[in-house]
Amino acid sequence: MSFAPWRSPLARALHRNRSKAYSRYPQLATVDAGGRPANRTVVFRDFLPDTDNLLFITDVRSAKVPQIAHQPYGELCWYFTKTREQFRLGGHLSLITAQDDDPAAEQTRRDLWETLSANGRQQFAWPEPGQPRTVPGYEPFDLDTSPPLPTFAVLILAPERVDHLELRGDPQNRHQYWQDSDHNWRSQAINP
Amino acid sequence: MSFAPWRSPLARALHRNRSKAYSRYPQLATVDAGGRPANRTVVFRDFLPDTDNLLFITDVRSAKVPQIAHQPYGELCWYFTKTREQFRLGGHLSLITAQDDDPAAEQTRRDLWETLSANGRQQFAWPEPGQPRTVPGYEPFDLDTSPPLPTFAVLILAPERVDHLELRGDPQNRHQYWQDSDHNWRSQAINP
Repeated sequence: MSFAPWRSPLARALHRNRSKAYSRYPQLATVDAGGRPANRTVVFRDFLPDTDNLLFITDVRSAKVPQIAHQPYGELCWYFTKTREQFRLGGHLSLITAQDDDPAAEQTRRDLWETLSANGRQQFAWPEPGQPRTVPGYEPFDLDTSPPLPTFAVLILAPERVDHLELRGDPQNRHQYWQDSDHNWRSQAINP
Repeated sequence: MSFAPWRSPLARALHRNRSKAYSRYPQLATVDAGGRPANRTVVFRDFLPDTDNLLFITDVRSAKVPQIAHQPYGELCWYFTKTREQFRLGGHLSLITAQDDDPAAEQTRRDLWETLSANGRQQFAWPEPGQPRTVPGYEPFDLDTSPPLPTFAVLILAPERVDHLELRGDPQNRHQYWQDSDHNWRSQAINP
């Protein structure tokens, strides 16, 4: 397959900003059942192989899970501090949970679980996120064994629209990318 | 007046991360008329004096303006890279535009315009943001004179709910702040 045309500037930004771990921490906006926006930092894990889809992980008990069930569209805002450029990626959100029985999806979930450190896995055994904190409940849990804990899910963003703004330059440069009715990507320069 | 209890940890984060200009560039999520989220980086200017309200600036021609008219609630996600902590501030959004004739609001708008550099003001004379780019239209414009250009607006976020997550610590620390029915701020420790 050929990748979407915004993959090349995004790959360049990831490369040029690679010295900073936080260059992989963009912000994901979703909408709750009351129609209000929610926004939180997420960790970009990788692209799903041979696709333009971005992979993240989440706890199925987190607030974003019912939000995505209500409105499966999100917008990721990704600001790169060193090169001073922003990507906004809007698109469809979906989850791979323990209930998924598609073999490729199961494999993706297992593969991402394998990439986590012991500490990273531990968090999926912690008490329910967002609930009042009670002191017990954070004892280390034996997670040496696969499979992934049932609270562990993969979050997939399939971009449909990308806006790339480069603050360097006077005037600044901004490009928009979108899919036409045949799902071919198109792009144009727009005013910043 | 007394400030909200989340002001103190936020002031501390701003202070500890002050060496990085981008520590003042959080991401603001809004909802469009189709019920989809939008998310972009904004520049935190200041607090409105004697309030807990955060000030930003915007061009009235930007997409966020009709979004806010449709849904006047936003969530700001603010990740501080040096201290590794995140604030999520959800609350009411409002604008001060050239049409506003309340004297205090007019003054706030003039004051923020005065803080802008010549280059910063220039952008409000640029062609309409988001429209296809045409080469002419970026000639310097004489902006020595007040008042602010009619495209210049102030954006105000009045937080109603704040979530503060500190990644340092094992387990991480997370606190939630909200206003009760008497508009008094309350807080509690919650699970990360």
